[in-house]
Amino acid sequence: MHNLTIDSDRLWRTILETSAFGATPDGGIRRLTLSPEDRQVRDWFRAQCEAIGCSVKVDTVGNMFATRPGRNEHALPIAMGSHLDTQPTGGKFDGVLGVLAGLEVLRTLHDADFETEHPLMLINWTNEEGARFAPAMLGSGVHAGVFDQAFADSRTDADDISFAEAIEKIGYRGETPLGETRFAAMFELHIEQGPVLEQEGLDIGIVTGVQAMRWYDLVITGQEAHAGSTPMDMRCDGLADAAAIILGTQAIARRLGGMATTGQLSIAAPSRNVVPGKLTMSLDLRHVTDTGLDVLEIEVADLIQKQCGDRAVLQTIWNSPAVYFNATCTETVRHAAEKLGASRREIVSGAGHDSVYISRVVPTAMIFIPCKEGLSHNHAESAEKTHCGLGAQILLEAVTSYLPCSEGKLISSS
Amino acid sequence: MHNLTIDSDRLWRTILETSAFGATPDGGIRRLTLSPEDRQVRDWFRAQCEAIGCSVKVDTVGNMFATRPGRNEHALPIAMGSHLDTQPTGGKFDGVLGVLAGLEVLRTLHDADFETEHPLMLINWTNEEGARFAPAMLGSGVHAGVFDQAFADSRTDADDISFAEAIEKIGYRGETPLGETRFAAMFELHIEQGPVLEQEGLDIGIVTGVQAMRWYDLVITGQEAHAGSTPMDMRCDGLADAAAIILGTQAIARRLGGMATTGQLSIAAPSRNVVPGKLTMSLDLRHVTDTGLDVLEIEVADLIQKQCGDRAVLQTIWNSPAVYFNATCTETVRHAAEKLGASRREIVSGAGHDSVYISRVVPTAMIFIPCKEGLSHNHAESAEKTHCGLGAQILLEAVTSYLPCSEGKLISSS
Repeated sequence: MHNLTIDSDRLWRTILETSAFGATPDGGIRRLTLSPEDRQVRDWFRAQCEAIGCSVKVDTVGNMFATRPGRNEHALPIAMGSHLDTQPTGGKFDGVLGVLAGLEVLRTLHDADFETEHPLMLINWTNEEGARFAPAMLGSGVHAGVFDQAFADSRTDADDISFAEAIEKIGYRGETPLGETRFAAMFELHIEQGPVLEQEGLDIGIVTGVQAMRWYDLVITGQEAHAGSTPMDMRCDGLADAAAIILGTQAIARRLGGMATTGQLSIAAPSRNVVPGKLTMSLDLRHVTDTGLDVLEIEVADLIQKQCGDRAVLQTIWNSPAVYFNATCTETVRHAAEKLGASRREIVSGAGHDSVYISRVVPTAMIFIPCKEGLSHNHAESAEKTHCGLGAQILLEAVTSYLPCSEGKLISSS
Repeated sequence: MHNLTIDSDRLWRTILETSAFGATPDGGIRRLTLSPEDRQVRDWFRAQCEAIGCSVKVDTVGNMFATRPGRNEHALPIAMGSHLDTQPTGGKFDGVLGVLAGLEVLRTLHDADFETEHPLMLINWTNEEGARFAPAMLGSGVHAGVFDQAFADSRTDADDISFAEAIEKIGYRGETPLGETRFAAMFELHIEQGPVLEQEGLDIGIVTGVQAMRWYDLVITGQEAHAGSTPMDMRCDGLADAAAIILGTQAIARRLGGMATTGQLSIAAPSRNVVPGKLTMSLDLRHVTDTGLDVLEIEVADLIQKQCGDRAVLQTIWNSPAVYFNATCTETVRHAAEKLGASRREIVSGAGHDSVYISRVVPTAMIFIPCKEGLSHNHAESAEKTHCGLGAQILLEAVTSYLPCSEGKLISSS
């Protein structure tokens, strides 16, 4: 038992302080993974952790692990983790809150000179967003053994720069071998990125799992032709196909209670008086259950076949099954929320998070706080200072009260 | 009267020869205006004209005028003209045929040592395509007084390079002042760029006019949001709006017997797991009559208003009214086609051409030949050698038989 209280003013100041790395004129952040701005925030993160007595290790895909020693040197650390990279139109909270709230927890313990039984660990996962290098959650995926080093290194961005090249350039190819860093459990605090908590007037979401989601690339081959002299009914217009597929897919997703998004669309040789020929677009499908996502995929594939026949190729580039978080971890979060008198509900995340992959290898859970109008991946992304502070306090309660002993096998025998 | 015959083999060889400037692996041409490839073909064109005794002048927007002297030094030249620039996915014939057939006419006259009454002129107009610098038909438009020098110079390409910068870079800012070069009439030979002549098994189209056409930029402002946690019915998806507008606009165009094309579409901050916010797209509307185009525009604007309300801004960037070519010129083409026994029909061009602007200042007409499957603005663009030769022969007949005397005011008093 303890009566430690995090400093929500300091947490808020820290959020504002780091928002300078990649700040956009309208108050957002553009801090693409492994960019110069990402290096700035990484350097800052390392310095802050070392200043409160943590040792910081970096693995070979750039994941950063800050460890605060505990009383039991044989015990595996209890971890807090999220990510400091952002979308091109990112805000101040997505991922950032989880890392900085973890830092606030460590600072609070440091100021109180409080010693935990287990060591504590704070993790900054590389490339959670997937905006510069697809797929998303790459660093946590590599840690969990979902991807390997070569796969990560071979990812390329829109300018054809590889992940390997980018990580060397910012100097964050660490020396800690993949998988060498172990921890007993991980808790991730995050903004909801959806409107449910705000609309229901609740403080905290106890996240029981994550939607199933799949990413696809769709290549449509039409026939380029003159826009003025090719009769409408003799065209093979790739963009008209894409438009029908976008609207049709969204209608299917609505009907099945899933989600469908096309965020990227690129005409191969765009010209305003040429009927578009070849075209590439992304497709992101999600559903709360794996079966629901399977049905959604089948109907969408059928729609594409009907619209384009052999002229379209749909390729799955990423698949993330539905996730159910560890019951002991979610129970720990629930107890912390109860203890603090936070209004709360169970919730399924519609977004992917590093916790998805980490939950495959150690007990994991997430804590959500509301964000304004459910907005994220948007410069206007916003969260209340009191909610951030409450989330950080629950994170502190969780990592100091979680008992990995209840899953005895997780205690390291050293 | 004469019995001059153009050399269709030489014309064909010349078409193949110049197709090397900007050749693509699949047999097409990518020769964007004022590019290094455009400079190559311009240098070649000047040398070929000078080799047969023509003098070549270049005006301040890069239009090239090759003049072959006639018996009457006081008479204005009779011109042949088209363009040597291509679309990004251009073929060997669009524009190129009209210039090279004109060269073949001049070569034929030169070989026969044939002296015409009027001087003849062959023109290569700058930036007909509008693919690198919008709007299209820029050089002929400047010549006709539709645009001025400053407007042309201020056009920018996708890399923000200005027309002024590009023309200086390739050394084709000529010294001939705009408007100093005069001619009595212009004939332009062109591939149809549509399927009508081929489908009807005809050799020649006597072009009586050109469709009305307008270009627009449409900017849609949606709201960027997370693709996984923003419920479908709480989204403001700019791309879904665009898809509905593209399909709706095409349906309206079909119903009204017009044409609608979106050839460019760009999401401002594309990311595969972000609902698109701001988006820009082009719109190209055409109709055979000005009134028909007005109605089409009104219905499309109404559709956009219904879909997006104040979130969409539609801006007209170019307007080209329906064109009716000079009756004496089209009659000259008809007589030439009859004399040669070519199967023929009257036709309205669906595409814009330099002749649209030139017809505003001097009598003008066009000659169409069929092209394979009506394809153009496509690497697979193709035309028959015999049709090319027949078109060139009609061009020769037209420029040697046209009597500007019938429009006495056009004879220069020097």
